[in-house]
Amino acid sequence: MLKKRGIFMRIAIIGAGSIGLLFSSYINSDFDVTLYTRTKEQAEEINHFGLTLKKGVQITKIAACAVPFTEWDGTEDLSIITVKQYQLDSIISKLNDLPVTTNNLLFLQNGMGHLKLLNTLKANNIFVGSVEHGAYRENPYTVSHNGDGVTNVSVVRGDSAELIQFASSAPSNFPIVIKEDYYRMLTSKLIVNAVINPLTALLHVKNGDLIRNPFYLQTVEKLFAEICQILNLENREENLKKIKNICDLTADNRSSMLKDLEAGRSTEVDAILGFLLEEAIRKDMEAPIVASLSCLIKGKEYARGDYL
Amino acid sequence: MLKKRGIFMRIAIIGAGSIGLLFSSYINSDFDVTLYTRTKEQAEEINHFGLTLKKGVQITKIAACAVPFTEWDGTEDLSIITVKQYQLDSIISKLNDLPVTTNNLLFLQNGMGHLKLLNTLKANNIFVGSVEHGAYRENPYTVSHNGDGVTNVSVVRGDSAELIQFASSAPSNFPIVIKEDYYRMLTSKLIVNAVINPLTALLHVKNGDLIRNPFYLQTVEKLFAEICQILNLENREENLKKIKNICDLTADNRSSMLKDLEAGRSTEVDAILGFLLEEAIRKDMEAPIVASLSCLIKGKEYARGDYL
Repeated sequence: MLKKRGIFMRIAIIGAGSIGLLFSSYINSDFDVTLYTRTKEQAEEINHFGLTLKKGVQITKIAACAVPFTEWDGTEDLSIITVKQYQLDSIISKLNDLPVTTNNLLFLQNGMGHLKLLNTLKANNIFVGSVEHGAYRENPYTVSHNGDGVTNVSVVRGDSAELIQFASSAPSNFPIVIKEDYYRMLTSKLIVNAVINPLTALLHVKNGDLIRNPFYLQTVEKLFAEICQILNLENREENLKKIKNICDLTADNRSSMLKDLEAGRSTEVDAILGFLLEEAIRKDMEAPIVASLSCLIKGKEYARGDYL
Repeated sequence: MLKKRGIFMRIAIIGAGSIGLLFSSYINSDFDVTLYTRTKEQAEEINHFGLTLKKGVQITKIAACAVPFTEWDGTEDLSIITVKQYQLDSIISKLNDLPVTTNNLLFLQNGMGHLKLLNTLKANNIFVGSVEHGAYRENPYTVSHNGDGVTNVSVVRGDSAELIQFASSAPSNFPIVIKEDYYRMLTSKLIVNAVINPLTALLHVKNGDLIRNPFYLQTVEKLFAEICQILNLENREENLKKIKNICDLTADNRSSMLKDLEAGRSTEVDAILGFLLEEAIRKDMEAPIVASLSCLIKGKEYARGDYL
C-alpha cells in the first residue's frame, strides 16, 4: 500500500462517490487518508490517475491512496462512512465483526433513516455529520465541487476526542463544525431535504420552481406543516423561511433525488421520507402527504425513468 | 339559417368540442339539431365541410347546421350544454337572460363542480348527464369516436318529459340512458375521474401504469380512501374494483387531464378535485391528499408544460 506514515491522524473514507471523493481531495494533505472503494477497478484508477478536484475554473490533481473496501480492517483513528443510507447494511455487518475498541465512526448519510441502524453497532464512538457542500462525481476519480458549504458533525454516543481532533485539524477551506445536538442538527437538514427533494423529483422541476410557482409553493407549505407536526418542530416560521431561501439560492439546481430518478438510480426516499413515516407511526400520527409522496417517488424508482 | 323544420324535436348543442361534435354527428338525423360554436369561423367551417365522424376505419360525413353561440336564443326543445365546466359562466349568464319557460337544459360537464352553478339558474327543467364515450376532436369539424359507451342522464329538477322524449328518440348506436338518482350517477363517474386523472397527469403516465406499478397502486388506494370518506361512499370495494378495471381496460390511454396538460390547456381539476375539496370543507373534514394533488395539478397548469 502506498500510504503515508507519520504524525498524521489516520482517516479511512468509506465510499468513493461524490462525497467520498470530495472529502479525500480536501483533507488528503492534512491527514493520512485511505479511500475505500466498492470496486477494485475504481481503487486502481484512483491510484493510477490520482484524484481530480474541480472547482469553478480551478482543477487540482491530488495523489491518493485507494483500496477496495474488502481490505478495510477498521484500524484507522477515524472512519468516515460516505455511502448512501441504502448501502449501509453491508458496512454495518462488517463493522460489527471488527474489534470494538478501534472504532471511531463518522456517518455522513442524508436523512435520519440510518439512526436506528447506528443503534445496532458495537463500536464505542459514533458520530454523525451533515454535509452542506454541493458535489458531483464526474468519473471514478474526478469530483466537481459546485456548492460551497460546511460539514456539521456531532457525537451520537461515546468519546468525542477523535472527532474534535479531526475537526480542528481540517483545512480552513473545508471546515468541519462541531454541533452540540446531533438530533437537532440532522433534523434541520432533514426538513429541507424532505420538502425540496420529493417535490422537485415528482414534478420534474428545478429547486427555484418550488417558490416561483404559487401552487407548488402552497404544496411546499402543506408538506412542511405535516413534517412540523410529525417532528413536533419549534421555530416553524424560521425553518420555512430557510427552505424557501435554499430554493432561492439553488434555484437553477436539480435536487439530488431528481438527478437520481433521471439517472435511473435508487433515491434516498427511505432515508428522508421513510424516517418521517416511521416517526409518524411511532407517535400514532397521520402523515398522508408524506406517505403519498413516498409512494409516488418509489413508483418512479420502480418505473426507472420509463416515462411516456 | 339552414335548419331543417319539421316534426323533429329541436335540439341545441352548445359547444363544438369533442363531445359537442360527437353528439351532433350521432343525433343529427333523428333530431332537428343546431350546433352552437364559440367562434364564427368554426360555424362557417362546419357549415361548409359538414361534420366528419371517424370510428375505426369508418369515416362518415354529416351535413350539419352550425351557428355562433351569440345567436342562441334558447327556443329549442332541449339544449345540451357540452362546454367544459370552467367555460360555463358566460353560458349561465346568458341563460338567465332568456325567458324561463323555454329552457330544458341538459348539462354534460365532467365532475360535479357545476352542480352549485345549476342552482343559480332560473330555468325550470334542469338535467345532467355523464358521458362514457371516448372522443377526440381532430379539427374544428372532425371528431374521432375512439371509445364506445353510453350517455347516462338524470333529472336535477323540474319536468322530465323532454328528457324522456330525447332519450327514447336517440339512435340505437348512441344510447341515452335515464338514471333515477343524478347525484349517485355523477358521483360514480367523479370518483373514477378523481383518481385516474390527477395521478396520471401528475406522474405523466398512461392509465394502465396506475395498476401495473405497485407503488402507484398504493397511492390509488390511499387517494380513493380519502375520497370515500369525503363522499361518505358505500360499496367501497366495488367502486375501487371499478376504478382498477377502467385502468385495465384503458391501459394504453392518456387521461384527459394528462392530455390537457400536455397540450398546455386548462384542466378540469376544479370540476373534479375542487368539488371534493368544497365537500370536505362543508363537512369540516381534512382532505390532505386531494388538496395536495389539486395544488400540484394547478401548478402544472400554471407552468404550462414548461418542464425541464
